[in-house]
Amino acid sequence: MAKEITGMSEDYSQWYIDIVKKAGLADNSAVRGCMVIKPYGFAIWENMRDQLDRMFKETGHVNAYFPLFIPKSFLSREADHVEGFAKECAVVTHHRLMNAPDGSGVVVDPEAKLEEELIVRPTSETIIWHTYKDWINSYRDLPLLINQWANVVRWEMRTRLFLRTAEFLWQEGHTAHATREEAVAEAKLMQKVYAQFAEEYMAMPVIQGYKTANERFAGAEDTLTIEALMQDGKALQAGTSHFLGQNFAKAFDVKFLDENNKESYVWATSWGVSTRLMGGLIMTHSDDDGLVIPPKLAPTQVIIVPIPKPAAEIDEVAEKIMKALRSKGISVSYDTDMKKRPGFKFAEHELKGIPVRIGIGKRDLENNQVEIARRDTKEKSMQNLDGIENYVEQLLADIQQNLFDRALRYRTEHTTRVDNFDDFKEVLESKGGFIEAHWDGTTETELKIKELTKATIRCIPNDVVEEPGKCVLTGKDSKHRVLFAKAY
Amino acid sequence: MAKEITGMSEDYSQWYIDIVKKAGLADNSAVRGCMVIKPYGFAIWENMRDQLDRMFKETGHVNAYFPLFIPKSFLSREADHVEGFAKECAVVTHHRLMNAPDGSGVVVDPEAKLEEELIVRPTSETIIWHTYKDWINSYRDLPLLINQWANVVRWEMRTRLFLRTAEFLWQEGHTAHATREEAVAEAKLMQKVYAQFAEEYMAMPVIQGYKTANERFAGAEDTLTIEALMQDGKALQAGTSHFLGQNFAKAFDVKFLDENNKESYVWATSWGVSTRLMGGLIMTHSDDDGLVIPPKLAPTQVIIVPIPKPAAEIDEVAEKIMKALRSKGISVSYDTDMKKRPGFKFAEHELKGIPVRIGIGKRDLENNQVEIARRDTKEKSMQNLDGIENYVEQLLADIQQNLFDRALRYRTEHTTRVDNFDDFKEVLESKGGFIEAHWDGTTETELKIKELTKATIRCIPNDVVEEPGKCVLTGKDSKHRVLFAKAY
Repeated sequence: MAKEITGMSEDYSQWYIDIVKKAGLADNSAVRGCMVIKPYGFAIWENMRDQLDRMFKETGHVNAYFPLFIPKSFLSREADHVEGFAKECAVVTHHRLMNAPDGSGVVVDPEAKLEEELIVRPTSETIIWHTYKDWINSYRDLPLLINQWANVVRWEMRTRLFLRTAEFLWQEGHTAHATREEAVAEAKLMQKVYAQFAEEYMAMPVIQGYKTANERFAGAEDTLTIEALMQDGKALQAGTSHFLGQNFAKAFDVKFLDENNKESYVWATSWGVSTRLMGGLIMTHSDDDGLVIPPKLAPTQVIIVPIPKPAAEIDEVAEKIMKALRSKGISVSYDTDMKKRPGFKFAEHELKGIPVRIGIGKRDLENNQVEIARRDTKEKSMQNLDGIENYVEQLLADIQQNLFDRALRYRTEHTTRVDNFDDFKEVLESKGGFIEAHWDGTTETELKIKELTKATIRCIPNDVVEEPGKCVLTGKDSKHRVLFAKAY
Repeated sequence: MAKEITGMSEDYSQWYIDIVKKAGLADNSAVRGCMVIKPYGFAIWENMRDQLDRMFKETGHVNAYFPLFIPKSFLSREADHVEGFAKECAVVTHHRLMNAPDGSGVVVDPEAKLEEELIVRPTSETIIWHTYKDWINSYRDLPLLINQWANVVRWEMRTRLFLRTAEFLWQEGHTAHATREEAVAEAKLMQKVYAQFAEEYMAMPVIQGYKTANERFAGAEDTLTIEALMQDGKALQAGTSHFLGQNFAKAFDVKFLDENNKESYVWATSWGVSTRLMGGLIMTHSDDDGLVIPPKLAPTQVIIVPIPKPAAEIDEVAEKIMKALRSKGISVSYDTDMKKRPGFKFAEHELKGIPVRIGIGKRDLENNQVEIARRDTKEKSMQNLDGIENYVEQLLADIQQNLFDRALRYRTEHTTRVDNFDDFKEVLESKGGFIEAHWDGTTETELKIKELTKATIRCIPNDVVEEPGKCVLTGKDSKHRVLFAKAY
């Protein structure tokens, strides 16, 4: 199996596609740009979704569900928003099909034209703020801390499984607050929640920062982001949290009476992560043998392989190990396939990224031992069966930590300070990664650098250090460095 | 609060809408026929969904995700299916908007017309079986036991919150099997899972049966159903499980090689339940004071109300009770609102259907007692604080059982055997409910009865007793009774 994967160094794009398809994560569909998320890929996404959902609820949020369709006119209500989102989208114009007069199938019934076209939501600020108008009257109705898990559609021209698809799954939080301060604090909190999820569960280190005006969400006053670095030296925007000011409240006329009976517009945030995180997960850890999944997100954390195949005494030990592991909340399977040889199975389970493999052979059992292999380093060792569950529990924690450390090391090694434009271009081309450089603060310069190098400003890190300098392109004054990279 | 609800006997439809809206379950949206599921309604749906999902996984199913859109031509591939589903649906014809030349907003870009229209899925058999063609080659690829949680759209003319909406949330299982027997067994298993969920979790008794040819799913060879009876004497189809034969395999050319290298078409099932179950839940148990939720599905099972308002000694007892209840896995909240009076809170929590209310007053505390009220019967009693968690745990189980028993009693009382058409009409109009009557087995008679009475054959029960008789309308021979009712 494993040899079918294109080498990462040979063709990174193809390597990525091979992993996604051959590990059974997702596939293209009959509908342009839309993917099918296969059971194994979906099981990983479920683990991510469930953990995020727990973290949202722990921070006081509740789920709700808003319509898939948005009346076309809603998109025009917020001026910046329409520019950003009302372009490439799926437009519903009719509500009926009819049998073709020539019997060739079905055709659109021209009589069933909608009075106003409906847009399949590319994001839901407009329909949600239209709804909030009915829900918010007084300060007692605030804050509203609502999240939605949903599918959205953006008609992308160039798509790539998980990373950029016409339809994708995501969550979108939409909160309403009485004060600017509270909304700003909410946007920051959710950035922190995203960062914590990325680092603790995905084992993917992220830089927390805020976007330049040019890279902001359409309709936001401030966009906070978490940015990760992939193994090809390109950045991935993994989640964003927007402070929307009163823009949507004004566009949809959502006001509230405060404790002094004074009327004001409501303050808003929105924040989201999507199935794009699956792309980030894959590209942060996987290797030429296939997928590598951090233990905390692996649908199967441990796979037991009988060597050379199932037999009574091996089955018995496998059952005992499974029981012991499950009592610790570890998910484990036993590969009882009679037809495949151990070597084939090893490759298959490596391709699937199962963190730990336990091989049970009759000879080893005589010494009360089994062989344990870890997916991240491919190291193997013989372990005594007594207390094996404690060893595996600790090993899973070690793997989780090692994956994070390894990714952090890669990022550290691929973050470079440069002080002139020649170095900027040279580092970007030869080494890639994040570049810390001075910038004069203008959109003009930002766009010029992008045009010349394809690098964009990923963010101004939250913990940026004030440090006077000169813009790497224009030589104009700069107060601190910003983070550049080529990005997905 | 409660007095704002229209009486059930006064206007059942309005009573239903009042409950849905005033208990905060759902509301109409700006988009025709599409609802907003509000946080409290969604929390109940989440509990239903999570339990169903566990039951699906326990029976060997896995989740996946398929595209929202279906190419128009796919719908024509299965002849019966197109008749049933390709009519009232949302049709995407364009993929871009542009600024209106007159600056009035956005308009559809005529240049961005799709070559082939896309249909927003009304159900996913076609796109899924198109995909299965790539996934199935050999008997080793079977069975495929896949479920999808998704939103679907059917352009309904007359909509009602939860019961019939243009967009709704549901799950759709789509399985593929090597043999007819295995597929039939799967369809039956899922009917049983649905019935078990309805009865054990929703406390909603259901009749398991199969549909007549006329009432079958478009493309199915057999449709199994669970049918519940609402408090207005109308039936609700609560879930269906279809044996699809080889119809979709033939339409999408999905064959497999068996162990003898012989090629055959694959056998299929599909099965689904939707947010319609929310309507069934409401209409099975609620009353004129509001919603009644079975404890197993209640987002908050116990509410504690301080009388007359929070105070140090009351708070302390409330904390202790909450800790004790939570240690038993019981969800509990403490209503600390300083501004509302107990009576107002009682009505509010009754409207929301919280199964158990604990009132803590200072005077009762002197006797080490609290007042416990159950939502189903409205009975109140004083209980000693010692071991209160055991009392509440048992009370929740009693309420769950009582709700089921009460609903079963209602159904038993509203199930009538009739042997002539005058009685049929008379019972249907005066008493409603299920009618057990003989039918001659023809679609013609079935349609005639529907035309004359609005009653449809809900199902032929799985446990129907062979009993020769004469059709209630035509007097022709019949082998057993079938179940008629007016239905949602």
